[in-house]
Amino acid sequence: MIVIMKQGAAPERIEAVVKRVEEMGYKVHLSRGEARTIVGIIGADDYKIHQDSFLALDGVENVVRIMQPFKLASRDFVEGNTCIDVNGAKIGGEQIAVFAGPCSVESREMILETAHMVKEGGATFLRGGAFKPRSSPYSFQGLGEEGLQYLAEAREQTGLPVITEVMSPDEVEVVGEYTDIFQVGARNTQNYSLLKALSRTSKPVFVKRGMSTTIQELLMSAEYVLSGGNMQVMVCERGIRTFEPYTRFTFDVNAIPAIKELSHLPVIADPAHGTGKWELVGAVAKAAVAAGADGIMVEVHPDPSKAWSDGAQSLTPKRFTKLMQELRAVAEAVGRKM
Amino acid sequence: MIVIMKQGAAPERIEAVVKRVEEMGYKVHLSRGEARTIVGIIGADDYKIHQDSFLALDGVENVVRIMQPFKLASRDFVEGNTCIDVNGAKIGGEQIAVFAGPCSVESREMILETAHMVKEGGATFLRGGAFKPRSSPYSFQGLGEEGLQYLAEAREQTGLPVITEVMSPDEVEVVGEYTDIFQVGARNTQNYSLLKALSRTSKPVFVKRGMSTTIQELLMSAEYVLSGGNMQVMVCERGIRTFEPYTRFTFDVNAIPAIKELSHLPVIADPAHGTGKWELVGAVAKAAVAAGADGIMVEVHPDPSKAWSDGAQSLTPKRFTKLMQELRAVAEAVGRKM
Amino acid sequence: MIVIMKQGAAPERIEAVVKRVEEMGYKVHLSRGEARTIVGIIGADDYKIHQDSFLALDGVENVVRIMQPFKLASRDFVEGNTCIDVNGAKIGGEQIAVFAGPCSVESREMILETAHMVKEGGATFLRGGAFKPRSSPYSFQGLGEEGLQYLAEAREQTGLPVITEVMSPDEVEVVGEYTDIFQVGARNTQNYSLLKALSRTSKPVFVKRGMSTTIQELLMSAEYVLSGGNMQVMVCERGIRTFEPYTRFTFDVNAIPAIKELSHLPVIADPAHGTGKWELVGAVAKAAVAAGADGIMVEVHPDPSKAWSDGAQSLTPKRFTKLMQELRAVAEAVGRKM
Amino acid sequence: MIVIMKQGAAPERIEAVVKRVEEMGYKVHLSRGEARTIVGIIGADDYKIHQDSFLALDGVENVVRIMQPFKLASRDFVEGNTCIDVNGAKIGGEQIAVFAGPCSVESREMILETAHMVKEGGATFLRGGAFKPRSSPYSFQGLGEEGLQYLAEAREQTGLPVITEVMSPDEVEVVGEYTDIFQVGARNTQNYSLLKALSRTSKPVFVKRGMSTTIQELLMSAEYVLSGGNMQVMVCERGIRTFEPYTRFTFDVNAIPAIKELSHLPVIADPAHGTGKWELVGAVAKAAVAAGADGIMVEVHPDPSKAWSDGAQSLTPKRFTKLMQELRAVAEAVGRKM
Repeated sequence: MIVIMKQGAAPERIEAVVKRVEEMGYKVHLSRGEARTIVGIIGADDYKIHQDSFLALDGVENVVRIMQPFKLASRDFVEGNTCIDVNGAKIGGEQIAVFAGPCSVESREMILETAHMVKEGGATFLRGGAFKPRSSPYSFQGLGEEGLQYLAEAREQTGLPVITEVMSPDEVEVVGEYTDIFQVGARNTQNYSLLKALSRTSKPVFVKRGMSTTIQELLMSAEYVLSGGNMQVMVCERGIRTFEPYTRFTFDVNAIPAIKELSHLPVIADPAHGTGKWELVGAVAKAAVAAGADGIMVEVHPDPSKAWSDGAQSLTPKRFTKLMQELRAVAEAVGRKM
Repeated sequence: MIVIMKQGAAPERIEAVVKRVEEMGYKVHLSRGEARTIVGIIGADDYKIHQDSFLALDGVENVVRIMQPFKLASRDFVEGNTCIDVNGAKIGGEQIAVFAGPCSVESREMILETAHMVKEGGATFLRGGAFKPRSSPYSFQGLGEEGLQYLAEAREQTGLPVITEVMSPDEVEVVGEYTDIFQVGARNTQNYSLLKALSRTSKPVFVKRGMSTTIQELLMSAEYVLSGGNMQVMVCERGIRTFEPYTRFTFDVNAIPAIKELSHLPVIADPAHGTGKWELVGAVAKAAVAAGADGIMVEVHPDPSKAWSDGAQSLTPKRFTKLMQELRAVAEAVGRKM
Repeated sequence: MIVIMKQGAAPERIEAVVKRVEEMGYKVHLSRGEARTIVGIIGADDYKIHQDSFLALDGVENVVRIMQPFKLASRDFVEGNTCIDVNGAKIGGEQIAVFAGPCSVESREMILETAHMVKEGGATFLRGGAFKPRSSPYSFQGLGEEGLQYLAEAREQTGLPVITEVMSPDEVEVVGEYTDIFQVGARNTQNYSLLKALSRTSKPVFVKRGMSTTIQELLMSAEYVLSGGNMQVMVCERGIRTFEPYTRFTFDVNAIPAIKELSHLPVIADPAHGTGKWELVGAVAKAAVAAGADGIMVEVHPDPSKAWSDGAQSLTPKRFTKLMQELRAVAEAVGRKM
Repeated sequence: MIVIMKQGAAPERIEAVVKRVEEMGYKVHLSRGEARTIVGIIGADDYKIHQDSFLALDGVENVVRIMQPFKLASRDFVEGNTCIDVNGAKIGGEQIAVFAGPCSVESREMILETAHMVKEGGATFLRGGAFKPRSSPYSFQGLGEEGLQYLAEAREQTGLPVITEVMSPDEVEVVGEYTDIFQVGARNTQNYSLLKALSRTSKPVFVKRGMSTTIQELLMSAEYVLSGGNMQVMVCERGIRTFEPYTRFTFDVNAIPAIKELSHLPVIADPAHGTGKWELVGAVAKAAVAAGADGIMVEVHPDPSKAWSDGAQSLTPKRFTKLMQELRAVAEAVGRKM
C-alpha cells in the first residue's frame, strides 16, 4: 500500500503517517519527491490493511492499494487451478461442469421428471431452489425442507449431485443435510454472517456475484469462506446491473478471464440470470465457455410457461439438449471437454 | 398488468393467456387492435402478480406492470405520512431527525464520549455499529454484544434513542434487547430471511437502500417488513453504485422526492456513505434536507484519523456541530424544523 | 404505443388524449377497464411517435412503446442479414471479418509495417486512426490527412480495404477521399450532425456503440444513416461503462445476440476497448465470435510499449497471429469461417 | 504519476521505465522497496502524461495518477472562483443564475411569450433550442437559423441574454451571430472537434456533462476550451445514466461540491434532464442550490402538454414562478442571492 501525501504536506503530517504504519506493525519506505512525499508500507500481510486507516489522516492526498486485498483466493497462494470433486463429478478441471434444473422445486413429480431430462441432456449437476429469495413477499417462497427431500430423491434416482441455495445462517444445517453444494445467491454475496457459517462446513460453496459486486469484492466473499477453513469454493458470474434495459442484467464476460488471472478458483457462468431471456441464453453460454468458464448453470423447466419463477429465462429440455451439443463443439475448440 | 401479444399471435396463444389469467383468479379485458391484441388483467390485488407468469407464454411480446408491486408501502394505503415515535423522538414529522455517532463502537469510553458530543451538537438519535459487515474477513468485525451494552449505557446517560445494525436472523433477539431501532444495512436490503424476522418484532426498522437496489425494490423490502405485521418502517438513501470513481457512491437525490411520491414512509439520507468523503458530507446533507428528507444519518468520530472504520467519511464533533447550524437554516427554508 | 390513463382519470382527460392521437394522424383503440382506461395508438408508422407527446398530458400515468422506434434497421424491413461488400471483402456473411491495425497511424513506416504484419496474420481490413478523439487536449491528436495518405499507401501495398475514424461533418469529404469505410467512434455515436453527413455518402459506415448508449439508441443512430439513404451500415459493441473498475469498460456480450434478434445489420466486436487490457482481448474475442459476432476489431502494434495511444490494449503481431488461429477454431465450432 | 513495477521485476525492466520517463523530459524518483520498485515521475507538466505510455511496458503492474490531468480548469490555476459576466448578468458570483425557457423554439409567438413569462418569474437568462439533437431521425430537428432569429428578438424585447445549443463545428459561426452563450449538449461533451472550434470564439461556453462522463472527463472537456484560449467556461451537471429506471437519469448531486473542490469554474444544475419528470424538478433544484450550485437551468413551456419535445419534464410558467420563490429561501439559507 502507498500513501501519497498532499503537495507541501508538513513534516509532522508525514511523521504521523509513518508512526501509524509502524504502530500497525509494518515497515515504512519513505520517498521524498520535489513536490510530494510518498510513504510505502511494507510487510507480508499488507493485503489486510484497509485504505481508510490512512485516508482520514491530515495531509494525506490518496491511498493506493498495490496488492489485491485477498490472499487465499489469489493465484499466489495455490499453484495451478483448484479442482473440486463432488462424488466424482469435477469442477475446475478439463471437463466443463453443467448445472441444470428448474429455478424452483415445484413438486416431487416435477423435479424428478426434470432431473431425468437434464441428465439425459448432458447435465453433470442438478440445480433447484427450495428456499427462494423473492423480491416480493407475495411471490412463491419455495417448498423449504420438503423441496430439499425431493432434490435428494432426484439425486438417488439419477446419480447427479445436487446444488441448492441457502439464504441464512440458521438454514445451513438443514440445507447441509441434503445438498452436495451450497449455493450463495446474488443477493447474499455480501451476507457475511452466512459466508462465515458456510466457512465452517465441509461441503463446497458456490458463491454468485452480486448484481453490483465488483470482481474484487466477489473474491473477498470467497476469501471469507476460505479464511474460515473451507477450501472448496467456486464463484459464479451471473450478470451485473447496468443502464441497459433490453436485458435484465448485463453478463460480464470480461469477468471470466479477469478472475482466472487473479484467482485459482473455478469460475461458473449463469447465462440465464445474465440475460433474463431464454432466447439469448444459448449465445451467451457459448461465449462463456469460449472465454474460459469452467462450468455453466442453466435453468431448465419441463414447461417454462408454467414455471412458478424465472419462466422467461428457462430452457425447455429440448432446447437444453440442443445447447449441450453446440456447447460441446465450442468447448473442444478451446481445448475443453463436455 | 397488461400482456401485449406479438403481432399476428394465433388465437390459441391469446386464449392461453386468457386462461392463465382466469386460473389465477383475475378478470380479463381483451382489446383486439388491428395489429396486436392486448390482454388487460383486472383485480384488486394485481400488484401481487409476477410478470414472469406471462412472459414465458408463447406469443407474448411483453408484459407491462401498471401498478407498483407493493401495497402497504404505497401512498394509496395510508393517508398522509407515517410518523414514527421512538421514546418521544419523532421520525417523519415536521422535525428533521438526526442520527449521529461513530461507524463502529470501538470502546466504552469512545461511545460515551461521542454520544455526549453528538447530543450537544444536535443529534436526536445515537448510531453506532456493534455487528459490522466488513468486505474483508481481516477487518475489525465489531464488538458484538459488548458493543450493544455500551450503546445502552450511552442511551442511559444521554437520553438519545439508539439505532444499530442487525445482520442476521439469529442476531435479531440479542440486538432487540438493546436497540431502539433495527438498522438493515445496504448489503442486506434484499436479505429476505432477515426482513421476515424483523417483521415479527415490535421495534422500528430502518432499511437502507442497497448499492444497486432500485427504488421499487427498496420499497418491496419495506413491504416485506410491513406485510409481516410491523408497520414501523423507514427507508434510507445511502448512495448507489455508478461509473463515477471520484466519490465512493453516487448519492441519488432524485430518490428522495421519488419515494415521497410513491410512499408514506419516512425517508432518511446518509450523505457519509453516499459520498465516501467527509469534505462532501455537508453539501450533500443540505441537499437532502432541501429535497425533502425526513432525517439525516451522519458518522461522527472524536478523532476520525483513528477510527477503526469509515474514518475518511466521518465528521469531527466540531464539524458536526457546524453542519447542524447550517442544516437548521436549510430546514427552515423548506418549512421544516431542527 | 399505449397510453395508460391514471386511475379514475376524468372523461375529458381521456378525450384530450384521443384528440391528440387523431391530430397526429393515427387511429385510436380505446379500452375502458374497471379501474383504468388504456388508449392504443394504431398506425403504420407508430414507431415515429415520441412518448413525450403524451407523457405531459394531464391524467396520463404512463406511455408504453410496443414497437421499436426504428424501422429501416429492424428485422421486419429486410429479409435475412445484410452483407456488405468492400472491394470483395465481406462483412455480415459466413466469413468473420477481421479489422486490425494500430490505434493511431504514427508514421509512414509504422503503418506500412503493421499493415503487412496483420495481413499475414489473417486480417481482412486495415484499421488506423488519423483523426483521433483524445480525452486530453495535451495528447497526440493524430496525423490528420497525412495519416490518411499513409493508410491509402498501405492499402495499395497489401490490398486490405481501410477503415478510419471521422469525427466531424467538415472532415467527411477529406476522409472519404481515402477511406473505404467510415468509422464513427464511441464518443460520436449520438453526434447526429455527423451521422446525417455520412448518410449522404456512398461508403459503408461503421457505428460504434457509445459507452452508455443503449442497444436501442445504437440502432437509432444506425437509423439516422439508413434514413438518409446510405444502406451500408454496421454496428459495433465496444464495451459499456459500469461500476466495475478492474476493466476499463464492460464488454456487453448480451448485445451481440440481442442486436441480431432486433436487426439485420452486421455486428462487430471490439474486445480491445471492451476490456482495456491486452491480456483479456483473446478470451473476449473468442466469446464474441461464439456469441455470433460477424467480425472482430483488434488493435495491433509492432511494439505496444511504444504506442502513442492505447498501448495497454494492443496486441503484438505475434499475439495477433496466435489469436487468429484460436479464433478460427471457435468460428468453425459455431458454423462460421475465417 | 507513479509507476508501480511488478513484484520481482527485472532490473532491465525498471531501467526501461526510467529511460522512457527521461526521454519524455521528466525526472525520475526511484524507490526500491523489498518487494517492489516504484518509479515516481517528476515534472511541472506531469498532468499531460497519459497512463498508457507506461502501462504497456513489460514489468509494469500499475500506473497511478497523482495530479488531475487538467491544469487551466483546476483550483491551482486561478485564485477564487471564476465569475462570468454576460451583458451584466453574472454566473459564478453571489447571485444564483437562472436559465429558463422551452426545450425547443417552436415558433416566434411561442418563444416571445415564454421569454416574457420566465423574465417575470425571475429568470436571468433565456434558453431555447434551435438546433436539436434528437435520438430519432423522425423527430422534430429544430427550426435552425429561423429559431435563432426568434431568440434574438426575444432578447431584444426582454433584455435576457440568450443561451442555445450548437451541435457541430460548421454551425459555430451562425449560432455565434445570435447567441450570447454557446451550449454544448450532453451528447457532445466529448465532441472534441466542436470544443476546439468553440475555444477559438470569444463567447462563453456552457459544457453539459455527458450521461456517462466522469467529473474528471467533464473538466477535461472544459480544459479543451480553456487551452484553446477561451477562458469563459462553465460546466453543468444534468444527470448520469444508472440502473435506476424510475427517473430518466440520476442527478449526481455529489458532483456539485466535488467540482467546486477541483475547479474554479461555475457549476450549473439541470434538474429537468436530471430527473426527466417535472414533479421532481422542484425538489432537485432546491437540492442543487443547497449543495452549492451557481445556477439552475429549467425547461419552461407555456403548455407542456403541447411541447414538441421534453414536455414531461417542463414546468408551466406558474410552477416556475412558485419554484423561484422557494429557491430564493434556500439560496439565502446557504448565503446566496436570487
